[in-house]
Amino acid sequence: MKQDIDLRITELGLILPPAPKPVGVYKPVLVVDKFLFISGQGPINTDGTLIKGKLGADMDMADGKLAARQVGLTMLSTIRTHFGDLKKIKRIVKVLGMVNCTSTFDQQPGVINGFSELMAEVFGDENGIGVRSAVGMTLPSNIPVEVEAMFELY
Amino acid sequence: MKQDIDLRITELGLILPPAPKPVGVYKPVLVVDKFLFISGQGPINTDGTLIKGKLGADMDMADGKLAARQVGLTMLSTIRTHFGDLKKIKRIVKVLGMVNCTSTFDQQPGVINGFSELMAEVFGDENGIGVRSAVGMTLPSNIPVEVEAMFELY
Amino acid sequence: MKQDIDLRITELGLILPPAPKPVGVYKPVLVVDKFLFISGQGPINTDGTLIKGKLGADMDMADGKLAARQVGLTMLSTIRTHFGDLKKIKRIVKVLGMVNCTSTFDQQPGVINGFSELMAEVFGDENGIGVRSAVGMTLPSNIPVEVEAMFELY
Repeated sequence: MKQDIDLRITELGLILPPAPKPVGVYKPVLVVDKFLFISGQGPINTDGTLIKGKLGADMDMADGKLAARQVGLTMLSTIRTHFGDLKKIKRIVKVLGMVNCTSTFDQQPGVINGFSELMAEVFGDENGIGVRSAVGMTLPSNIPVEVEAMFELY
Repeated sequence: MKQDIDLRITELGLILPPAPKPVGVYKPVLVVDKFLFISGQGPINTDGTLIKGKLGADMDMADGKLAARQVGLTMLSTIRTHFGDLKKIKRIVKVLGMVNCTSTFDQQPGVINGFSELMAEVFGDENGIGVRSAVGMTLPSNIPVEVEAMFELY
Repeated sequence: MKQDIDLRITELGLILPPAPKPVGVYKPVLVVDKFLFISGQGPINTDGTLIKGKLGADMDMADGKLAARQVGLTMLSTIRTHFGDLKKIKRIVKVLGMVNCTSTFDQQPGVINGFSELMAEVFGDENGIGVRSAVGMTLPSNIPVEVEAMFELY
């Protein structure tokens, strides 16, 4: 049964930030057959600015998890802006959750849960949870979290 | 010709560790059409504990390669537990091999070969070897190796 | 309309380096249905040597971007050598651009643009630009850039 995802976003009281403009030579989203591929998304605030910080240095777990949730909101905004109808999304398939962190930070899954819990709220536990890796890197513009994802379409 | 992979595992004398419980909001495996996606797997010992360490710091190449092999055994256990029949797997398509290492460690391919050689033993050279990247990151729980993979099903 | 990509490469005056031999247990390319998966490629010079360096340490943005372009040329060589006909490629779908960098380097997208701009020159803006993440890691053999990609075939 298809859910009305736009209605669900409203019911949950979620505010989507403006979709970011590409900062390089790539497409924000790309559809191939019944799959929607999303470029790595960072955490955009409602006012269009970026959340910045490095886990294990100037940002703690709670901050990082909130940033990951904001990455999820940014991704929903990117999908709505560049793909259109959120109702066409059947489920999330695969997530690569990337955490900007020091070489000793080791709680990347807890951070990326901020993204994953949001997707589960919006799309439900069955369709909103996919496979995932959550790992530490060094991220552009010193953003704390970046997530790329693949969705399946109806 | 379909191989009996469970028989092959027995013939090789491989001991699969217990499949890990998800440590975050994700599914261990997900099937879409004829593809099996596997979440990032770490090295679980037979007693259920995690191998830990960082390449270039407190773990050397030989240790790292053994850990990567254990990631392969863990992945096979995860597939058997959460997907079921290993006979349904046709071949490995894509592997992202992630090595927890210092910023100067540069032998990630040699480490990830521990995983890849196991898959070649189990599924054969044709079906057990796919495309791969083997790179250095900072990994959750200070595990030395994490691998995510996509398989094709019969 | 199919383009003659080999002709396009000649017109652009591009020199493809020799395709690298695998340095581990993986296939350089793998076709599944209408998708071509490419293992992570490094920057091979025309003489077969590797470009080496770390962004933020001994290599600057301009050098990194040139290295990323060379990764693109290496990928085209790998495709031509191991898959054959470049004319069978419809478009680039997904790119993971990995930059070998210090923990404070934050301009990975600018570096990976060297790869992406080359692909846009060769395949055109519509088919040569896909989704992308561009992030910082620690790379094998101290190469400055590694890119893995998925292409759609005709």
